[in-house]
Amino acid sequence: MVDAAGNLFLADCPARTALEVIANKWSVVLLFALKDGPMRHGDLVALSGGISRKVLTQTLRRLQANGLVERTAYAEVPPRVEYSLTELGHTLQEPIANLAQWVRTHGEALADFREADA
Amino acid sequence: MVDAAGNLFLADCPARTALEVIANKWSVVLLFALKDGPMRHGDLVALSGGISRKVLTQTLRRLQANGLVERTAYAEVPPRVEYSLTELGHTLQEPIANLAQWVRTHGEALADFREADA
Repeated sequence: MVDAAGNLFLADCPARTALEVIANKWSVVLLFALKDGPMRHGDLVALSGGISRKVLTQTLRRLQANGLVERTAYAEVPPRVEYSLTELGHTLQEPIANLAQWVRTHGEALADFREADA
Repeated sequence: MVDAAGNLFLADCPARTALEVIANKWSVVLLFALKDGPMRHGDLVALSGGISRKVLTQTLRRLQANGLVERTAYAEVPPRVEYSLTELGHTLQEPIANLAQWVRTHGEALADFREADA
């Protein structure tokens, strides 16, 4: 098990840093939202249900800095800026979709458990 | 897309709350560590590479409160306490394993991107 876990657990390895970028509620929500194509800042605010503009900007910057999301500015009037998944970001679609599917299937069970426990 | 995303994005639905429990670095690390069987607090500290005992305790409590992890105390001398995945927690193994595999495969690419960007 130590071998299997090693990559993920060592605090100074790239896998661990990558996990810190991805294993974050807003990262998952945004990467899931962007799977269907480019979106504007305002679209992402509306879709994310509760993210503040500040946290959205921070999360998008972190995803950009890690090569998962790209920002494209169109020279239009008014100016238009869109965010989309990079090629690397697209490789995350399957694991994120699996996680989303799990959350859809089992979210209710977690809620039931919390209520029974309360 | 709104349909597909709805469950995940609505801030007040069980899926979103479940996502908040799971999409967390330490939750992923602990759920991944527990896939091979019960572990003691000290084992999890050692395996997690950098978690504080306090944060470990908080994260385990949250996973317990959501029915993903169970705590078993054995009446031995000295007393022994183990943590293990519940049946519900086991259903997360596949999505977590997929995420871990992605992190192993692509963690280096994210690091390269950050360095190129710096």
